[in-house]
Amino acid sequence: MKLPRVLRIVSLAAAVGAALIVRADDGMWLLNNPPLAQLKERYGFEPSAAWLEHVQRSAVRFNNGGSGSFASADGLIITNHHVGFDAIFKLSTKEHDLLKEGFHAKTRTEERKCVDLELNVLQSIEDVTAKVNAGVRADMSPAEVLAARNTAKAAIEKESFDATGLRSDVVVLYQGAQYHLYRYKVYTDVRLVFAPEEQAAFFGGDPDNFEYPRFNLDIALFRAYENGQPAKVEHFLKWNPAGTQEGDLVFLAGHPGTTQRLITMAELEYARDIQVPGALRWMKSREVLLNSFAKRGQENARQVQDEIRGIENSRKVYDGRIGGLLDPELVAAKQAEEDALRKFAQDKPELGASDAWDKIAEAQRVIASTAVRNSFLETYFFNSDLYKVARDLVRSSIEGAKPNGERLPEYRDSAKTTFELALFSAKPIHPEVEKLKIEHYLTLMAMELGANDPAVQTALGGKSPAARAAELVQGTQVLAVAHRKALYGQPAAALAKTNDSMVQLALAMEPFARATRKTIDQQNEAKQQAHARIAKVRYAKDGDKVSPDATFTLRLSYGAVKGIDGAGNQVPAYTKLGGMAERAAERGNVSPYNLPESWAAAKGRLNADVPFNFISTCYSIGGNSGSPVMNRNGEFIGIIFDGSIETLVWNYAFTEARARSISVDVRGIIEAMRSVYGADALVDELLGKK
Amino acid sequence: MKLPRVLRIVSLAAAVGAALIVRADDGMWLLNNPPLAQLKERYGFEPSAAWLEHVQRSAVRFNNGGSGSFASADGLIITNHHVGFDAIFKLSTKEHDLLKEGFHAKTRTEERKCVDLELNVLQSIEDVTAKVNAGVRADMSPAEVLAARNTAKAAIEKESFDATGLRSDVVVLYQGAQYHLYRYKVYTDVRLVFAPEEQAAFFGGDPDNFEYPRFNLDIALFRAYENGQPAKVEHFLKWNPAGTQEGDLVFLAGHPGTTQRLITMAELEYARDIQVPGALRWMKSREVLLNSFAKRGQENARQVQDEIRGIENSRKVYDGRIGGLLDPELVAAKQAEEDALRKFAQDKPELGASDAWDKIAEAQRVIASTAVRNSFLETYFFNSDLYKVARDLVRSSIEGAKPNGERLPEYRDSAKTTFELALFSAKPIHPEVEKLKIEHYLTLMAMELGANDPAVQTALGGKSPAARAAELVQGTQVLAVAHRKALYGQPAAALAKTNDSMVQLALAMEPFARATRKTIDQQNEAKQQAHARIAKVRYAKDGDKVSPDATFTLRLSYGAVKGIDGAGNQVPAYTKLGGMAERAAERGNVSPYNLPESWAAAKGRLNADVPFNFISTCYSIGGNSGSPVMNRNGEFIGIIFDGSIETLVWNYAFTEARARSISVDVRGIIEAMRSVYGADALVDELLGKK
Repeated sequence: MKLPRVLRIVSLAAAVGAALIVRADDGMWLLNNPPLAQLKERYGFEPSAAWLEHVQRSAVRFNNGGSGSFASADGLIITNHHVGFDAIFKLSTKEHDLLKEGFHAKTRTEERKCVDLELNVLQSIEDVTAKVNAGVRADMSPAEVLAARNTAKAAIEKESFDATGLRSDVVVLYQGAQYHLYRYKVYTDVRLVFAPEEQAAFFGGDPDNFEYPRFNLDIALFRAYENGQPAKVEHFLKWNPAGTQEGDLVFLAGHPGTTQRLITMAELEYARDIQVPGALRWMKSREVLLNSFAKRGQENARQVQDEIRGIENSRKVYDGRIGGLLDPELVAAKQAEEDALRKFAQDKPELGASDAWDKIAEAQRVIASTAVRNSFLETYFFNSDLYKVARDLVRSSIEGAKPNGERLPEYRDSAKTTFELALFSAKPIHPEVEKLKIEHYLTLMAMELGANDPAVQTALGGKSPAARAAELVQGTQVLAVAHRKALYGQPAAALAKTNDSMVQLALAMEPFARATRKTIDQQNEAKQQAHARIAKVRYAKDGDKVSPDATFTLRLSYGAVKGIDGAGNQVPAYTKLGGMAERAAERGNVSPYNLPESWAAAKGRLNADVPFNFISTCYSIGGNSGSPVMNRNGEFIGIIFDGSIETLVWNYAFTEARARSISVDVRGIIEAMRSVYGADALVDELLGKK
Repeated sequence: MKLPRVLRIVSLAAAVGAALIVRADDGMWLLNNPPLAQLKERYGFEPSAAWLEHVQRSAVRFNNGGSGSFASADGLIITNHHVGFDAIFKLSTKEHDLLKEGFHAKTRTEERKCVDLELNVLQSIEDVTAKVNAGVRADMSPAEVLAARNTAKAAIEKESFDATGLRSDVVVLYQGAQYHLYRYKVYTDVRLVFAPEEQAAFFGGDPDNFEYPRFNLDIALFRAYENGQPAKVEHFLKWNPAGTQEGDLVFLAGHPGTTQRLITMAELEYARDIQVPGALRWMKSREVLLNSFAKRGQENARQVQDEIRGIENSRKVYDGRIGGLLDPELVAAKQAEEDALRKFAQDKPELGASDAWDKIAEAQRVIASTAVRNSFLETYFFNSDLYKVARDLVRSSIEGAKPNGERLPEYRDSAKTTFELALFSAKPIHPEVEKLKIEHYLTLMAMELGANDPAVQTALGGKSPAARAAELVQGTQVLAVAHRKALYGQPAAALAKTNDSMVQLALAMEPFARATRKTIDQQNEAKQQAHARIAKVRYAKDGDKVSPDATFTLRLSYGAVKGIDGAGNQVPAYTKLGGMAERAAERGNVSPYNLPESWAAAKGRLNADVPFNFISTCYSIGGNSGSPVMNRNGEFIGIIFDGSIETLVWNYAFTEARARSISVDVRGIIEAMRSVYGADALVDELLGKK
């Protein structure tokens, strides 16, 4: 359920949507517009403003694509191991693979600073819809509206940042019906405190991913630092070691990435026919490539494990999505909802939305014709970290020469901290892996776009994919962070004079990439305008019963701890710590079901009966990984790390019968940390006993 | 280098081709037209007619897609383990996985009968070009020519079979310039005698496949039986335990599957843009699916290992091919050759071939527009053994009602033995695996052909892929061989009245499948007619210097044992038996580089210095696996099992610098069989000491 690669891939599709049909426990609610009526009606619970603010300020966004929460006054943070994976991976070396060994800082001086991890904590939300729309006039073309909104957004963000020093992002909600300004406190000094070995965190590996029952200690602890000292935080979640019972009301506060629950049928068909198939081709081909490379030896495997995990996860997500998109029941329900909405719009011409669906279909056709090409030119980055660096150098040079309001969003002043953290990251890059991946990318690009496409010919430079990949990797110096710093901020003309192969390639590809992106951006803007009109129809018809689609911003979900009933197919709500060893024995103790050595050694000490993982009906989606699960008192009683296979269609529609979110139980965390890892000091800090 | 899946996939493309440019040691020569001049000029060797006949009758075709040779007067046969894999796999059970354990029949009574293995031994070759073309008139359309030739071929085959009792196949050579009748002795009682564990046969697994140096005991021994007794054979290859030295002239006699060395640029572009990309999508998606299933447990892995090996192998082959197709040097050489040939044709209008290339391009355009659809409808069989059975029942019923000469080739009387062996095979079929694969197929089909395609809608039957797959597997009885026998031969009307889900599906899909196949067959015939004209131009220009493209019929190749020179990149011609343990130690003894237990236990006994694998310049391609390698005396000195990664483009063009065929050395076989496996009795039989 990790988000980063998913985000990268789905970024093509406009983030649009909400509930197909509003059902129990559905929704990813805004903290400034929580589902008070539903909570009161279904669970007799009314969160106070203080409760909401406490949750909001305790929740942490991991900018690599996940969630977490503060767990002590000294800035201790818990997230999933698989959310922390990227940071742990980047701290590992051939000699010390922390993913294999695990990590435990026994004192604060042993805590290890992460290479490029950024955390955000939401401080405030402000509705800026009127300001964003102030410059928009009815006679503008979509391109002009896009430019006007971009200028307004950039100004709002810059003004806020200059006034508060806080990261300030304008968030598009309800498909453009609302724009909210989110202000975040940013932490860039984040240190690794504790991580079990991956085999304990991800026991059962890819086969068990999105399955239940599970036995995963999918946790990692980090600590936020400020000025070289542990951050002092006012808001953190108190841990309640009593945990939950089946039936208890629980909450998630986290950062669901993107959903597409309000898309029209035209967009659904696009997802089914173009977007998901294209993403699956891209992922499966890379999965085969990297697994083949990994099998050549253990150091190979170590170098690419981060990417393999991400792809395996996303591939399962997309396999689940296409399954949903080809399910006639889901499609029929979507169609019925759209028919009803369109009829409502036609019956009320004063809403001015009856042609909105056709406008979306029209824009979608243009997107469909350029989407795959745009993926290769604009979002896949030659599947290369070195190319990504070179592209960022080239494009920041070009964009930096423009006024702030006219730049592409990721190059605005307000995004500078985030941008530079990534650009100057000292994360390990392996030239042999780069060569392999670029060769593969070039081959796939030629197969998908056609060998005679001018962009493909420019990319290949008159060579075979293998020869070109070797030439590109040998001819660049951007592997060195110092070299990146030397090139950063130079005008494009100066970059054009360097003989760096990757910089030259990025310059040569720039016209092709910009052209496809421009097409996609403009059509997405046209869709957004039509969606904003549909949102009004929906509001007129159904009122405020629907939460906005996910936007990787803070949301609140709720539900109950609940097992699964089903003829001959019951699944209990909880698993126990002892279950891991039992399953390992059943599966012959063979990878990915081998019992971690530390767990085998703890056999006499570990209380096998303590609850380990549990399932609940809370709505969650990629990006929610690491979200704290809380009880009515806002106390931490678990951490979400996965959803069952049935949740994968939640991207398009909510279904309830067997779909469940999966969490690690607070009781299992405490017992394992003490009995397996001897992390008593940390547990004491987590329980406020220090 | 195993052939079966490759064959299934490339069968779309017409088997057309020969040498791009005739170079040293190139060619897959007909036994009735060997390269006498080249052999004499380069190696001072002149094979006698007796030498050629002895080799021809000692060579064995494995009809699942490989080669082998008789090795004793009592019908003992040696082939590769990976050629025998399919047969060994089908003799394995959950309790006894012979791929993991290996197999050694210490007495003949312990030899185990294979489930559905057919072997062919070539008895004679007859040129029937005039007979095949007798009914063709200049004013016929391609469809009429196709029908006329099919009728003629069926009659020739039937007449030959009735007269001789031998399997009789008309083989298309030189793109239709020649037709030869091949008569084979057929063995269907074939028994497994000896196989090492797969870890010894395929040490290094997928990562080392197509690489060198290698350390593989890729052998398996079978025995042909007749009337319940070991077959007495006159021709078998004597083993020479002295082996070879670097520089020695060696020969291969085997059955290369298909090559495309004479295709035109239009066909090359089709391969690059449509055929190879389509095949790679199909393979990579299945590789991901099956590996994910295999990781769930050891019995899962056992059930799908056959298919995984096949896909991994083919995927490497196709990755190599696309690399060649995107290599500007290869393409430029192809283009130059075509330009020269077209100029020659234009300069000699009396050859009547100047428009042949345009005719091919025209036919290729039609094929391109229907090829992917045809793959899904006609050749992928829902990726299901159960559907394949049902389709064979349905189609043999329909075809059986027609005169022999009007049937599709695989349903002619002459193919009956082969057809029934497959149809009534008791090979294991696992319903859970079937469900998984059908769901995957349906999903992929919808993504590739579009969810609204009528064939897709028929296949899905108004259900989601998962629900439809479950329904299909539950609703069929063709898993039972007895049920197949009960349905076989029934008229289509009777089949239509059964309520068997798979039979009903096959009936429903039949119109779609036949329509695409008809298009492809007709266009391939049109291409063949144009190619026959080009073949005349080529003959007029270059004479008889080129061997026909591969057709999975017996061919002779020659070359020298030769290491690789290269700046800092030398590779010696031979590896040694001790090298396996050394490489295992280097790679941490982790799969696929773990030393087999039997080899670890043999450490004190095994002579580590004995040659194990060697490389030579002989031309080989998929299907050659298991071909005997012989010295000037026609003695067995090794067995080919692989080609280096550089040979993968040999499908399109011969290149020499670093490309090598890879063989197991006779000396390594003897030493390992004695010292690791204690198979002294078998070695004595192989050395004629019994």
